[in-house]
Amino acid sequence: MVEELGITVKKEDDMPEWYSQVVIKGELADNAPVKGCMILRPNGYALWEGIQVYFNELIKSLGVRNVYFPMFIPEEFFHREAKHAEGFNAEVAWVERKHEKEAKYAIRPTSETIIYDSFGKWLRSWRDLPIRINQWVNICRWETKDCKMFLRSREFLWQEGHCAYQTQKERDEETLVFLDLYEKVLQELLAVPVIKGEKTEAERFAGADQTYTIEGFMPDGKGLQLGTSHNLSQGFAKAFNVVFKDKNEKDQYVFQNSWGISWRVIGGMIMTHGDNKGVVVPPMIAENKAVIIPILFEKTKSTVLKEANKLVEELKEFNVILDDREDQTPGFKFNKWELNGVPVRIELGPKDLDKKQCVFVRRDNGKKEFVKLSEAKKRLSELLDVMQEELFNKAKKRLNENIEKVTTWSQFEKAINEKKFVLAPFCGDPKIEEKIKEETAATSRCIPINQPKEKPGKCIKSGRPAKYWVYFAKAY
Amino acid sequence: MVEELGITVKKEDDMPEWYSQVVIKGELADNAPVKGCMILRPNGYALWEGIQVYFNELIKSLGVRNVYFPMFIPEEFFHREAKHAEGFNAEVAWVERKHEKEAKYAIRPTSETIIYDSFGKWLRSWRDLPIRINQWVNICRWETKDCKMFLRSREFLWQEGHCAYQTQKERDEETLVFLDLYEKVLQELLAVPVIKGEKTEAERFAGADQTYTIEGFMPDGKGLQLGTSHNLSQGFAKAFNVVFKDKNEKDQYVFQNSWGISWRVIGGMIMTHGDNKGVVVPPMIAENKAVIIPILFEKTKSTVLKEANKLVEELKEFNVILDDREDQTPGFKFNKWELNGVPVRIELGPKDLDKKQCVFVRRDNGKKEFVKLSEAKKRLSELLDVMQEELFNKAKKRLNENIEKVTTWSQFEKAINEKKFVLAPFCGDPKIEEKIKEETAATSRCIPINQPKEKPGKCIKSGRPAKYWVYFAKAY
Repeated sequence: MVEELGITVKKEDDMPEWYSQVVIKGELADNAPVKGCMILRPNGYALWEGIQVYFNELIKSLGVRNVYFPMFIPEEFFHREAKHAEGFNAEVAWVERKHEKEAKYAIRPTSETIIYDSFGKWLRSWRDLPIRINQWVNICRWETKDCKMFLRSREFLWQEGHCAYQTQKERDEETLVFLDLYEKVLQELLAVPVIKGEKTEAERFAGADQTYTIEGFMPDGKGLQLGTSHNLSQGFAKAFNVVFKDKNEKDQYVFQNSWGISWRVIGGMIMTHGDNKGVVVPPMIAENKAVIIPILFEKTKSTVLKEANKLVEELKEFNVILDDREDQTPGFKFNKWELNGVPVRIELGPKDLDKKQCVFVRRDNGKKEFVKLSEAKKRLSELLDVMQEELFNKAKKRLNENIEKVTTWSQFEKAINEKKFVLAPFCGDPKIEEKIKEETAATSRCIPINQPKEKPGKCIKSGRPAKYWVYFAKAY
Repeated sequence: MVEELGITVKKEDDMPEWYSQVVIKGELADNAPVKGCMILRPNGYALWEGIQVYFNELIKSLGVRNVYFPMFIPEEFFHREAKHAEGFNAEVAWVERKHEKEAKYAIRPTSETIIYDSFGKWLRSWRDLPIRINQWVNICRWETKDCKMFLRSREFLWQEGHCAYQTQKERDEETLVFLDLYEKVLQELLAVPVIKGEKTEAERFAGADQTYTIEGFMPDGKGLQLGTSHNLSQGFAKAFNVVFKDKNEKDQYVFQNSWGISWRVIGGMIMTHGDNKGVVVPPMIAENKAVIIPILFEKTKSTVLKEANKLVEELKEFNVILDDREDQTPGFKFNKWELNGVPVRIELGPKDLDKKQCVFVRRDNGKKEFVKLSEAKKRLSELLDVMQEELFNKAKKRLNENIEKVTTWSQFEKAINEKKFVLAPFCGDPKIEEKIKEETAATSRCIPINQPKEKPGKCIKSGRPAKYWVYFAKAY
């Protein structure tokens, strides 16, 4: 197999090229023969499946149930909520009609409209509320820019949750509960620190009254939106007649939210933890927590392989890989599994066996340790926990170090140029936000839910009274 | 909630209308506002998730890994394998181009072409083989007939497996291994008996050398194809240059198979087990194995509810529902949960409590039994196993009773008219098969792998020497 295994550029020198190599050579994804699309390979899909299992458990415990709605959305539906239509208009792909008389269908860029049409049909009384559903589906947005794997593509995988409630209060509360679950997915499962906040008016979802977001901050100094949860306007309920009889038998419109994360979170994970040897997969999401590489010599081969197989069996719950290929050197194997990001490498050679031990090597920091075979299971479990925690702490430290609080425009410009995640007082005016973007290429990332104690004072750009502290950064 | 709960026609009187009511009133699926499409509701999606979990475990143990390929397929790809293109031509939906210069894309009707293009790029040496991948995706086939929920729709969910091997022998063997897994899904999980066989030339997949199938037989006397596994022609390997260097460094084309089941199996399950009260869900696939209905009176309510909650906790592993709504009568609840097909109903009233017992009622045969609360868990577990087995045995008995072996044309016509699953000697000629279809509306379902011991003799239609015994029936 002739293949250039290693990553040939450094993360710190050329992050876009590094990213592309890490994704492709780590066999997470590949370019598709379809403009703007990517192929999710087994190593990448295993991560997506891990996210599905983790998130499904969280939402099901809240009473959310999974469904599947058609990917085709009647054109007419799509235009009932004016802001929604306007927001998505440019990106919608349509199915070619076979006959002129046929209805025209969009390929779903999101499913609010077709789902709320059913809510309108199914809903009768306050007893039927809340409705809480979710679907894991493919989405199509006909981007004109090139595909950036996991981060921007014409087709992508996501989940979209859709709920309807009797009261605005109940709705508002749960919209934030779902945001908290996204924070858990990112921070606890993928070890990617995020900042929770609300989007400014300019960055809101088309058809939402409020959009909440979890924002990540990548090592190249760019912000990355990683999940959103929306308080929808009642425009949808009105457009699709989503009405229930309240306890007084009076017709009322529901209050709704929708919330989504996509495979983009995998991109965030790769950029956050990857290094110049390839992907680093946090233990909790790793399909295979460790790989055993037996060191094979002619004389001791059978003994070593026997012990290696015993170890695989003992470490079964960690879904350990045994790489016992004899036509590849240990060095080649070390590189290959580092490229793939398997959290722990376990080396087992004849000398180790004499001492009834093996060698553990952590993927993230390369630290080696000798571990008694009798303690392998216990130690691996500990090490995986430690690694998960340290990956998060390291990323969190970097995020904290890169946050810069400013109060003047010159400080702001400087900080943006230095690729900081800039916290600044902002008046909230979309026109001012547009100006900031034009002059610095930075966009507002979020109005953090945890606002600094001190009042924001004056807006860094307009000089008018600031409404809140807002994070700005260049973004993906 | 004003709602006509029960099924208003009998299964034996009008099966299409019965089926539609069972599906809609059981809230498994609903008609979509998109021609030819359906909505999979939570009760239905839970079944699909159950199938995914079960089948994923089976295929992963064989080394199959999940992936996701784009749903858009370049027109040019789609035409490289001539038979394949011809077979799918009429049913393909295309994406409307935004600019004339843009490539034209099909919405996948199946993914052989786009997947094998990648195999061609990824594959280098015999060491990379076999490749075994699978994807769970939505599929689009622009049917002109109306939607029949789960059975025929313009969009449906399925899995498609795609493997490549060094040798034909290895490929041929595994194609049948996957067929065996489908048999397990249908028989062991869904309790639907099937017959395994090969499709005749006329019914083969477009681009296959052999197509194997599992065929079900529905209570209305119609055959239902429930899963297929194909030995693909090397036409695909040649069209997409899927080549590897063998051990002698010589270039060789791979041998490939593909295999799929769709949500149609849920339709088969509904038709097989459902009755005039609604769906009957086999225990193994049931999301909730039982529902507890407390019988509430003012005086004893709190005691009964307390015990009911204790029981829910004790039966946790069975994911039991507690229907403690006070604004619905027990009778209403009995009907509702029968309609939904929950395998066991557990009634708990004050008189039962005095005797430290509860009442179990099986969904399939309505049999009641009194069960000591201290034995509820053990008894429920037994009862679910028994019910699973009996559902299968009952359906298997019906299938066996409806098989009719014939050797003459008049016997054949009579048996088809009597809605039998007819086993007849057949010469294999597609033209003769076409004639049989024209005259009787019956199609060949499969050449059973287990052929009768006696030689087939003469073909029932052509009178020429028969090649094999073949099952014929009218079909969905």
